Amino acid sequence: MISFTCDYNEGAHPAILERLLATNFIQQPGYGADCFTASAKARIREAVGCPQAEVFLLTGGTQTNSTVIATLLRDYQGVVAAQTGHIAVHEAGAVEYTGHKVLTLPQREGKLSARNLKSYLEAYYADGSYDHMVFPGMVYISFPTEYGTLYSKSELSAIYAVCKEYHLPLYVDGARLGYGLMSPACDVTIQELAQLCDVFTIGGTKVGALCGEAVVFPSGNAPEHFFTMVKQHGALVAKGRLLGVQFDTLFTDGLYFKIAQGAIDLAMKLKKLFLDKGYELFLDSPTNQQFILLTPSAAEALEGKVAYEVWETLSDGRKVVRFATSWATTPEQIDELAALLP
Amino acid sequence: MISFTCDYNEGAHPAILERLLATNFIQQPGYGADCFTASAKARIREAVGCPQAEVFLLTGGTQTNSTVIATLLRDYQGVVAAQTGHIAVHEAGAVEYTGHKVLTLPQREGKLSARNLKSYLEAYYADGSYDHMVFPGMVYISFPTEYGTLYSKSELSAIYAVCKEYHLPLYVDGARLGYGLMSPACDVTIQELAQLCDVFTIGGTKVGALCGEAVVFPSGNAPEHFFTMVKQHGALVAKGRLLGVQFDTLFTDGLYFKIAQGAIDLAMKLKKLFLDKGYELFLDSPTNQQFILLTPSAAEALEGKVAYEVWETLSDGRKVVRFATSWATTPEQIDELAALLP
Amino acid sequence: MISFTCDYNEGAHPAILERLLATNFIQQPGYGADCFTASAKARIREAVGCPQAEVFLLTGGTQTNSTVIATLLRDYQGVVAAQTGHIAVHEAGAVEYTGHKVLTLPQREGKLSARNLKSYLEAYYADGSYDHMVFPGMVYISFPTEYGTLYSKSELSAIYAVCKEYHLPLYVDGARLGYGLMSPACDVTIQELAQLCDVFTIGGTKVGALCGEAVVFPSGNAPEHFFTMVKQHGALVAKGRLLGVQFDTLFTDGLYFKIAQGAIDLAMKLKKLFLDKGYELFLDSPTNQQFILLTPSAAEALEGKVAYEVWETLSDGRKVVRFATSWATTPEQIDELAALLP
Amino acid sequence: MISFTCDYNEGAHPAILERLLATNFIQQPGYGADCFTASAKARIREAVGCPQAEVFLLTGGTQTNSTVIATLLRDYQGVVAAQTGHIAVHEAGAVEYTGHKVLTLPQREGKLSARNLKSYLEAYYADGSYDHMVFPGMVYISFPTEYGTLYSKSELSAIYAVCKEYHLPLYVDGARLGYGLMSPACDVTIQELAQLCDVFTIGGTKVGALCGEAVVFPSGNAPEHFFTMVKQHGALVAKGRLLGVQFDTLFTDGLYFKIAQGAIDLAMKLKKLFLDKGYELFLDSPTNQQFILLTPSAAEALEGKVAYEVWETLSDGRKVVRFATSWATTPEQIDELAALLP
Repeated sequence: MISFTCDYNEGAHPAILERLLATNFIQQPGYGADCFTASAKARIREAVGCPQAEVFLLTGGTQTNSTVIATLLRDYQGVVAAQTGHIAVHEAGAVEYTGHKVLTLPQREGKLSARNLKSYLEAYYADGSYDHMVFPGMVYISFPTEYGTLYSKSELSAIYAVCKEYHLPLYVDGARLGYGLMSPACDVTIQELAQLCDVFTIGGTKVGALCGEAVVFPSGNAPEHFFTMVKQHGALVAKGRLLGVQFDTLFTDGLYFKIAQGAIDLAMKLKKLFLDKGYELFLDSPTNQQFILLTPSAAEALEGKVAYEVWETLSDGRKVVRFATSWATTPEQIDELAALLP
Repeated sequence: MISFTCDYNEGAHPAILERLLATNFIQQPGYGADCFTASAKARIREAVGCPQAEVFLLTGGTQTNSTVIATLLRDYQGVVAAQTGHIAVHEAGAVEYTGHKVLTLPQREGKLSARNLKSYLEAYYADGSYDHMVFPGMVYISFPTEYGTLYSKSELSAIYAVCKEYHLPLYVDGARLGYGLMSPACDVTIQELAQLCDVFTIGGTKVGALCGEAVVFPSGNAPEHFFTMVKQHGALVAKGRLLGVQFDTLFTDGLYFKIAQGAIDLAMKLKKLFLDKGYELFLDSPTNQQFILLTPSAAEALEGKVAYEVWETLSDGRKVVRFATSWATTPEQIDELAALLP
Repeated sequence: MISFTCDYNEGAHPAILERLLATNFIQQPGYGADCFTASAKARIREAVGCPQAEVFLLTGGTQTNSTVIATLLRDYQGVVAAQTGHIAVHEAGAVEYTGHKVLTLPQREGKLSARNLKSYLEAYYADGSYDHMVFPGMVYISFPTEYGTLYSKSELSAIYAVCKEYHLPLYVDGARLGYGLMSPACDVTIQELAQLCDVFTIGGTKVGALCGEAVVFPSGNAPEHFFTMVKQHGALVAKGRLLGVQFDTLFTDGLYFKIAQGAIDLAMKLKKLFLDKGYELFLDSPTNQQFILLTPSAAEALEGKVAYEVWETLSDGRKVVRFATSWATTPEQIDELAALLP
Repeated sequence: MISFTCDYNEGAHPAILERLLATNFIQQPGYGADCFTASAKARIREAVGCPQAEVFLLTGGTQTNSTVIATLLRDYQGVVAAQTGHIAVHEAGAVEYTGHKVLTLPQREGKLSARNLKSYLEAYYADGSYDHMVFPGMVYISFPTEYGTLYSKSELSAIYAVCKEYHLPLYVDGARLGYGLMSPACDVTIQELAQLCDVFTIGGTKVGALCGEAVVFPSGNAPEHFFTMVKQHGALVAKGRLLGVQFDTLFTDGLYFKIAQGAIDLAMKLKKLFLDKGYELFLDSPTNQQFILLTPSAAEALEGKVAYEVWETLSDGRKVVRFATSWATTPEQIDELAALLP
């Protein structure tokens, strides 16, 4: 049984495990004050081209989103997101748990548009009773989105321009950042991304780490006492080295980008495989998540041999399914899928 | 430089790292539905002697405390703790962040007494305006305490009897549980502990794991939809295998207890070393944290060679310091300390 | 200048002020333990036909909504509401501030439908990852709605049937309840309403009181220690008599219903007035809030003489405006409007 | 039966009720935009000698405390208060419900001392792990305190100096402010008080109003969008005129101070009455709350005729009781008490 259900089916890139072993008995202080974390932060600052960036290493995605959002917002503010945004749908209300509303806007293929954002903001401030409502306090987008799609540089720039006009920090959730940046369709570099938002994350969990998300405040603009609030949110790891070693390894010799590239190459091969056999795409994703309309006969053929995630069943019997590749996917797995797929 | 500053200065027990390596490419579902987590839970249920126990694996201590406490309490309730309780002092207000008050009681060497607890509860309900106050909703104790001390079986039983009388769940924070259970002064087994409280944790982070705390509800009494609330608190790990593999390893062939025993043996040796050289104890801890009154000359002799944590400086110039051993401490390190200590 | 902007432009019904004066120096205990509150509760229990109902008197609408919702929900739950629901739009995020998501559904003229509710619930539980999402924990509707519309008895029954099937309490926000019940289009009595939900409010502020909302739990099903949580929410009034005297007066000899009837009669007269002069309705409201499409020339004619609330301006230059009558509206005011309206 | 149990046993000063009647049908906008509120604010600004002050009118004490505190604090901060502070004991955990810890310090007769405050702050910042703890973010004191005692001008100044040194806003809860200011023992004027803190309240509920607390930010230093947060806390009254009329009346011709003076005069008479008959004071309060040690025989004599509040029973059988006078207390009531007291 091969699984393409998600990009967190395996452990970690072997280089990470080796590094954990090699450094295991070096005594280091806790809570992120270790030398590995310091090195990881330096490498990330260099990779994103922001010498003054503040970098924090947290454990998981929902945790990171709710911590960043709660600490950036004032009590009277909410976070603007696409209706399909991860924080709006699949995080068990973690943002609301911190007291803040997720203000949702319409989306297209998982993406917010600058125009919709601007219309919403204009309408908000034009409404005579806006101070009885929740103030938009920041904007959240994911890159890639929950549908695997990407914002182009000009789309990002347009959104960021609106954010700046309304003094709203822009937060880019990069849980799958590597897979976005390495897509052939991506026209943004990580250095450019760092200039086009106020805070973004570099997802480790889905790109080769056991766990870990790096939060980057490009201009050193972290909220005051962010460290304490990370602890308050239960997001501070005693053995910060666990995260430090991982990100230090991922950002040595561009490992993070190389393994993401591998996953993208195989995702494109996988997509072609389906298209060549006449399957229709639910939407044309340029990243590691591929959304395909699977016929009942294909589903039957894969039964018990290939696992994937089912999103919904259409009235014609076809299923919207997701096949995800990852840093751990092998060419052999794609070949095996090719052999099985009718 | 040898460090005795805390019990989270190193990585993980080698058996854990080896197991992570060995299982790395076995594809498994996320969020704790993996086979390693299932096995770990089964082993823990067996170790604690509660076949019906519900077990959850979370990442860190503060996270676990605030998640367990917030989900057990109703809105009108607070958690009773010793004034020195970790949740009352060193968790950045994580419990209050979830909307609940920590109701503190006097302590002795870090311990609550059943008598003080009962007096407080009697006085609370005798107060005509108690419904204008915060209802005591559960009791929190740590085992060992923040001062390394232990509750005897009879002390625990007495506290639990009061809790039952007032229908208050008793929560035992076992961040250092192994070091408590393996102390020569401990007269409680883990199976007995499981009968003397409503929920307890088995700390992994400080006892050989990279991260991880197991939450045990001995009688299957977890709050409804605890899984979702773990996610809401940002405490759900996508790669649950990271925690599953660790606890599965720790609870195979009693590894957890063996490595805790090693730390305790060295802690006793360390204590004897200080006593033999005429140092006074701040308090007589039977576990892996030793609190010693260090003279200025001793501090000078260790300067730059041995690290420990300073709690406070007394008026006579001596410092209250903490030396912690752990699963990673070696006899050689104790010998080296012995050689350096005047 | 006459104002039809809202139904809280004046003070209180004179009978209330007289009663406050008459009882002013009778010494009574605080926090709702006074004899006036006791009497008010008894009268309300009788009026709603529920001898076992629990009744609480709070100050204002947003306060009441967030207190009721927060205390009925468990941490992992949110409240289902129409996208136009007051709690979803105009309460400054008060529900989210208590940690809960407002789960919005499409609406028609401000109303939820049983069918949409059921579809949503079916889809929710059919989704394999529903435990990563916010559980629907209760349903909120307003009666009348924010658009002045009403649920028929059969619509309410259908919604309540779905709620019961899914074990979701149904909460009816009756901030303008009197104006709904007295509408000629209403086919529900207050006694029937009490059987068709789990908790509802009887709005005082907009129906003749200075302030005050009565929360009714028809079957005595208030959350445990609701009193304490009311206090925790800052919703407990020290001089409970202020609310007790008001509701006691409003529910003596049916005053609440009589004054609501007066407002409805004048609202119907006002609507006819607009229709007779050829104005179009934005929607046909059967209650005290009338939504009219006002032409620029009419707006000009009323300028400085008649106040109303503007909701939006259409592309043809007409404005969607709201004219609200209330217990304090006089026939003379309607006549004056008639004289001014072109 | 005469009641001295508290200072909220009656309704409102007759001048307030008359004014409510006189203004009842003047149409005014809601939410505090009415002319009465504007006038009340102007009068309060004048009375406190701060032309630039921002003034907000809220309903009740707990509500006001939690709203002010939650909006002044950042997430990582708590509020410092005396262990006997109202927010620490008798507000059902309303502050914690907003996510913030109440950091309690020892007290003497209900008062914090500048020295204790400073020691605590010094120790906090001297602690190497202070960023794992809750940052002190503001200081709360009550004036008069829960024991009826007062801070002298020099005590207040000393506390405020410490606050300034540590950049902590000082918040003075003046739920009974009038009774403090009019005490013969008080050496602070309301204008001076406004210079010695960053925000204070002028309690209406206990000093002649039906309800209402005025929050004063002396230098116009209200948190941004305080209005919206007041709404979010459920503390915004639709008919703001209810509060506006009351405070406008109370601050016309010094009514607030005159009626407070009356209560103080009678409290002093009441105290003398007890002392003259040989009763002992629990503590010597200079304000309207008198704490007396009542003998069993006295309790018996008053039984069924005079009501007061019992705080606790001493081992010698005497009870610590509170007798409160108020703006509504009459000389005849004191005479009657004198006649009954053995």
